[in-house]
Amino acid sequence: MRPYALRGDFIWTPSPGALELRPGAYAVCDENGLCAGVFDVLPESYAGLPVRDLGDTLIVPGYSDLHTHAAQYRDMGLGMDHELIGWLSDLTYPEEARFADAAFAREIYGRFAAELRAGFTTRACIFASAHREGTEILMDILDMTGLKTFVGKVNMDRNAPDYLRERDAAFAAEDTERWLSETMGRYENTKPILTPRFVPSCTPEAMEALGAIRRKWGVPVQSHLDETPEEVAWVRELCPDSESYAHVYDAAGMLGPDAVMAHCIYLTDPEVALLKARGTFIAHCPASNMNVRSGIAPIRRYLDEGLNIGLGTDISGGHTLDMGQAVRDALSVSRLLWRLREEKPPHLAAAEAFYLATAGGGAFFGKAGKFEPGYAFDAVAVDDGGWRDPGDGLDIRFQKMIYRAASRNVVSKYVAGRRLF
Amino acid sequence: MRPYALRGDFIWTPSPGALELRPGAYAVCDENGLCAGVFDVLPESYAGLPVRDLGDTLIVPGYSDLHTHAAQYRDMGLGMDHELIGWLSDLTYPEEARFADAAFAREIYGRFAAELRAGFTTRACIFASAHREGTEILMDILDMTGLKTFVGKVNMDRNAPDYLRERDAAFAAEDTERWLSETMGRYENTKPILTPRFVPSCTPEAMEALGAIRRKWGVPVQSHLDETPEEVAWVRELCPDSESYAHVYDAAGMLGPDAVMAHCIYLTDPEVALLKARGTFIAHCPASNMNVRSGIAPIRRYLDEGLNIGLGTDISGGHTLDMGQAVRDALSVSRLLWRLREEKPPHLAAAEAFYLATAGGGAFFGKAGKFEPGYAFDAVAVDDGGWRDPGDGLDIRFQKMIYRAASRNVVSKYVAGRRLF
Repeated sequence: MRPYALRGDFIWTPSPGALELRPGAYAVCDENGLCAGVFDVLPESYAGLPVRDLGDTLIVPGYSDLHTHAAQYRDMGLGMDHELIGWLSDLTYPEEARFADAAFAREIYGRFAAELRAGFTTRACIFASAHREGTEILMDILDMTGLKTFVGKVNMDRNAPDYLRERDAAFAAEDTERWLSETMGRYENTKPILTPRFVPSCTPEAMEALGAIRRKWGVPVQSHLDETPEEVAWVRELCPDSESYAHVYDAAGMLGPDAVMAHCIYLTDPEVALLKARGTFIAHCPASNMNVRSGIAPIRRYLDEGLNIGLGTDISGGHTLDMGQAVRDALSVSRLLWRLREEKPPHLAAAEAFYLATAGGGAFFGKAGKFEPGYAFDAVAVDDGGWRDPGDGLDIRFQKMIYRAASRNVVSKYVAGRRLF
Repeated sequence: MRPYALRGDFIWTPSPGALELRPGAYAVCDENGLCAGVFDVLPESYAGLPVRDLGDTLIVPGYSDLHTHAAQYRDMGLGMDHELIGWLSDLTYPEEARFADAAFAREIYGRFAAELRAGFTTRACIFASAHREGTEILMDILDMTGLKTFVGKVNMDRNAPDYLRERDAAFAAEDTERWLSETMGRYENTKPILTPRFVPSCTPEAMEALGAIRRKWGVPVQSHLDETPEEVAWVRELCPDSESYAHVYDAAGMLGPDAVMAHCIYLTDPEVALLKARGTFIAHCPASNMNVRSGIAPIRRYLDEGLNIGLGTDISGGHTLDMGQAVRDALSVSRLLWRLREEKPPHLAAAEAFYLATAGGGAFFGKAGKFEPGYAFDAVAVDDGGWRDPGDGLDIRFQKMIYRAASRNVVSKYVAGRRLF
């Protein structure tokens, strides 16, 4: 790759709460698609580098969507008067079953990928469905977008309708290994991620077999954890001998710094300690917290405890793929938790929610989410001309971007140095 | 006005929770700009009526925004890490002070009016600033939009910076009467509404004088009530002899079916009884509930108590003028209140939030917000082609509209029979 520089008004956050505001600066992308630094004046050593001047467009690191369901794309906004368990059986499972049809999968996944590509998202962890073929179709499509993605074939061999359920643990393991053998190393941008749906959907035999597969193939893992009180009680019934919901995953070797668990609304103190010890990532999905009325994840506390946290859109528990809305929603639910539960210390600040969307979630993919030397050059250009006022400083423009910018305001995007549009 | 008919897929709600779904129907607008009914087949008596066929566009009643601040338009999204009182002094009051400048007012109010005209909103109750001249500029501009609006010159003669505060009660009364004499009956679409900012900003003398003005001129009134615990405690200090915050307004004759109070998050039982007895409207502003971290208004309970309720965007406590977002936010906060406070009966359903935005708030303006005979013909056409799936029934399209439609999806709008675009 030929090195180049972008010029514009850069904003990123090196640590939770800290904000770097660099108007009219130059970000250099090196031959490996990594950021070589941000400079107010382009250094001599980079003289002659091709420069793309984005004028006074805002440039922020790409956002990472740590949890979403491609097979629920058509359901966005549907069934929101349901609660989690009924919503799964009445709406979600019947829809996911349709992805057994390759033509259907090609059409819907194509629409999903196009919308994901257009917004703030540069990297994502994505659930497909239980179908191996459909999952590979999604991976084929996503790889072409240029976005960096982890995609999972969903495992579920119990507590799901027969039309969707994997026959048994043996079939789940065999089908999953076949899927891994067919997809590992096959793509430039897309990688497989092990995806036991959640504890209630996986027999102990399946969870153990998947743990063995994880060790054998060295694949990362994504799942759900502590989303609703009803679900937590159900897991307690299903696994009476386990210390907690999180410990069920841990016993199968499903935690670690290459594991991301969605929601984590009701973590007990031992679970917090366990996730921290393992370096496991939390995918905070605030829209889903509200839509499925699950409750509010105490992200302020988790952040102060030093847990790894990013944001997720969680369609169709969430109703939009727009990560800008996820940032606003993270701020909203944090404020309400503070007010309704007097959580100390107070709620997230705008710069902290922005951190979760960029550096926080980016860390799951390695060095991503900051404009710092050695980080992947993921850049999103946001046109704020529609609401910018003369004389607005970059700090004001940052606040307005957080509350007003939507996917349609993203005018250019780079992933690992490669320009997508 | 020449009668005509609109053809399209109509959705409205006759009562909380009930939904009328009328695909391919005809709505007739009579010579007075009132709805004559919705018909699956155009009756003989209307043969020859000009028909505008909107195809399979969704047509819903116009939304009423019962509470917003035009003078805070530029502040949307700013200062959200503040809380109410500090947010007023550090951000809001300095901005409102600029509306003493007529040229500034003309520019910003013009942008506000243009955005309001483009979205779901057909009717609105709007705070200007304490400046009479600026308020009249806003009324001039709003009248030209064709939207039906109540606009208030804000009264505040205490607990506000000198640069914004009205000198004293006598000046407040005199300036307000002059404003009323200059604006009452002057506009086709815009009317003045008495606007004591809130109890802490008005001396007892001012409140009493405004009450007398309200009786003399027969004008409606808008204000704020029970927004945050800190504010409620402050009012208790300021008015130790009053039974409650609401009773301070009542003593001055500020309640009634022509009065709308924003927020009402912390109403006591006597206050609920008082508002109900007076028929006073509540403007529920869910985005503001979250942004200013005020808490969550228990709308489920108020609705079941039979109170009059509509929705408000409350910029810039709210961060958007998009009433579609207000509907989503009303659903979100209701669900969280149910989950975090176990409020019984459960949270609002989508059709109920839609009711608040249309018929609920519309009632403040008389007969508005339904496609029923005798109701103002306020119609908003929404293009849902961007997310509609083949075979989606009107019930599914309604749910998707609630969660996906934004101002930009409004393709045509009628207010009191008049087509705006």
